[in-house]
Amino acid sequence: MLVTNIGQLVTLGGEPGPRRGRAMRELAVIPDAAMLIENGLIVATGPKGAFEADEDTLDAGGRVVLPGFVDAHTHPVWGGDRLDEFEMRASGATYEQISKSGGGIQSSVRQTRAATDDALREKFEKHCRWFLAGGITTIEAKSGYGLDLETEIRMLRTLTGPAPLRVISTVLAAHAVPPEMARNKYVSCVCEEILPEVARGGLAEFADIFVEDGFFTHDDARRVMGKVRALGLGIRMHVDQLTQNGGATLAVELGATSADHLEQTDSDGIKALAQSRTFPVLLPASVYALGKTKYPEARQMINQGLPVVLATDFNPGSSPTPSIPMVMNLACTQMKMTPAEALSAVTINAAYSLCRGEQLGSLEAGKQADFTIWDIADYREIAYHFGVNQLWRAYVSGVHVA
Amino acid sequence: MLVTNIGQLVTLGGEPGPRRGRAMRELAVIPDAAMLIENGLIVATGPKGAFEADEDTLDAGGRVVLPGFVDAHTHPVWGGDRLDEFEMRASGATYEQISKSGGGIQSSVRQTRAATDDALREKFEKHCRWFLAGGITTIEAKSGYGLDLETEIRMLRTLTGPAPLRVISTVLAAHAVPPEMARNKYVSCVCEEILPEVARGGLAEFADIFVEDGFFTHDDARRVMGKVRALGLGIRMHVDQLTQNGGATLAVELGATSADHLEQTDSDGIKALAQSRTFPVLLPASVYALGKTKYPEARQMINQGLPVVLATDFNPGSSPTPSIPMVMNLACTQMKMTPAEALSAVTINAAYSLCRGEQLGSLEAGKQADFTIWDIADYREIAYHFGVNQLWRAYVSGVHVA
Repeated sequence: MLVTNIGQLVTLGGEPGPRRGRAMRELAVIPDAAMLIENGLIVATGPKGAFEADEDTLDAGGRVVLPGFVDAHTHPVWGGDRLDEFEMRASGATYEQISKSGGGIQSSVRQTRAATDDALREKFEKHCRWFLAGGITTIEAKSGYGLDLETEIRMLRTLTGPAPLRVISTVLAAHAVPPEMARNKYVSCVCEEILPEVARGGLAEFADIFVEDGFFTHDDARRVMGKVRALGLGIRMHVDQLTQNGGATLAVELGATSADHLEQTDSDGIKALAQSRTFPVLLPASVYALGKTKYPEARQMINQGLPVVLATDFNPGSSPTPSIPMVMNLACTQMKMTPAEALSAVTINAAYSLCRGEQLGSLEAGKQADFTIWDIADYREIAYHFGVNQLWRAYVSGVHVA
Repeated sequence: MLVTNIGQLVTLGGEPGPRRGRAMRELAVIPDAAMLIENGLIVATGPKGAFEADEDTLDAGGRVVLPGFVDAHTHPVWGGDRLDEFEMRASGATYEQISKSGGGIQSSVRQTRAATDDALREKFEKHCRWFLAGGITTIEAKSGYGLDLETEIRMLRTLTGPAPLRVISTVLAAHAVPPEMARNKYVSCVCEEILPEVARGGLAEFADIFVEDGFFTHDDARRVMGKVRALGLGIRMHVDQLTQNGGATLAVELGATSADHLEQTDSDGIKALAQSRTFPVLLPASVYALGKTKYPEARQMINQGLPVVLATDFNPGSSPTPSIPMVMNLACTQMKMTPAEALSAVTINAAYSLCRGEQLGSLEAGKQADFTIWDIADYREIAYHFGVNQLWRAYVSGVHVA
């Protein structure tokens, strides 16, 4: 297939590796471009005059073409809903208060355990359509509303089943301590039952843990991640979301592929990240949706050369948005990232943070033809307008999926 | 037409008049409902069992039906774009700095004066599609990027031309002082040339003014609004957006139908509004999009019995969102309004703030059949999820428009 008459082809091509510092603003945009695709892979990109139309030609009508977004942090499967909690927060209750009174994650755990496989699949499929509708072609997807062997496995089977976009699964059994068990006992259960079973079944590529007051400690994380490493899974970690407790430094110590959230991370934590290979994954939608104002220090991270990633954190409690354009708008308006930096953070950097940088995240010869076409004339319009969907079409491996 | 099998019919019916205080939470929801429509008007609503299916029956499939949203404050026509300015703000410049250096409104004025009628119409039609896609069936629409007789009239002709939704037009010639004229001279031009010509042509129902440091003073407003009243137009005013200067009290003094923005309004201003018939129109999207954190005091206003209205403020500078669901989410997460209060504020209260409360804003016998059908099971999901469009269909006067 030849995609031609592209107003702006935003390739994010160039030197391999994630974008750091000022390079996050280098998008390698080709005006009046075309892109040749064969067998689901990109064969070539360039000025449209360099290509001859063939039978299978798609006229992009001067629109903008981007790499499909890579959403590196989502919780896309759950049972029931959290509408009452949303209403309580709107009436003044805090996330922490709701969580302590048995709401929050525990509410989703109860409803997910009670949900049928079909109900979980139906919700997941609906959410996949939402992701695609906003230009996302790859998600990292976490379990974590089961907190027991059976339900965690059921969630991961849902995530690893058929889907219209790429799904990279993460076991987040250590999302919270279930009500029926003491923390230490549950950590043992995670290490000795859940993680080995997940690894045996090939149900996840990464494992994750929520390090936070009232959730899991640094020592819990050392124990769990020791096991994770032994099982050959990659490490992702929720750290420094609600309280600053050295989580970023811990993630570096444990060799995590990504350290996620980082709202409370201080200069020491950023320095530790800057001397590591751990990707900072920032989730501004959850800051916004909880009505908080302390966003992660994206500018300081970029200035220190960190390959910043942005993701939705899509989940029923703290971030009920499946929209990367919305997250880019939050990054530009609340965190003072430029539109170009935000775009690097949801494509090439996000792909590398999931160990897919060689296959996804930019439009270059040899990579998967995961791309999106937008009804705009300038890529900055994606981050600029919010609450409106400007996507025209989305493709995964060259196949029209939305 | 009979619309039946409605999971929740959110009528907002009841006592006539806008909702005040706790009444803003009373939505008059009918479960398992139906709604009968004839000649574009609502004939009856009630439990679906009370209606017999006829030839022209629409099965809502258990979905939620709401009154079409009424967006009481938009600037939907402009020439060019403000992408460079968006990028500058993302790089740290403030709205005020950009405005002082010839950007901001003046940038849109230059581009609007240079735009052809066709270009203005094309943009307006695109924006109308965006409004409808998010469930808006009525907009208040302002001129204000012309700042000269010819271009203000051209803008208003665009707004009063054919459109797929209801448009109530407002002349905002006093949006800023044009660069070619001193302030006093321009105020004279507004009073003696532009407003009379607009009134003669029946091109606007309301007139508006931006009372702010660097824009127009209280005395300018007294002069302009004296003329507006004499011409028989209604009064809307931009007040207390960037600085607190008694704008709310001024709006009450001048008998304004609405006082819009009110981010900086203090208790005295709220007290003045509470003793008046002036509607407070709150625009949280512009606070958010400018990266500010001081939202208007919605809770205090509701507690004092004010009929709060929420609107998008859709415009190319400070609020590039056409989405009422996004504004409802901002109201719930940032201003601690409940989902029900937010819904009252964008339907029945908004309709009354435009003097359309007897025709629009609720689903009751005798009113226009302007309604929307949503792919959800509970009306709270509209304010809860953000960055995703859950609209199924929109109708204006019983006609399927989106």
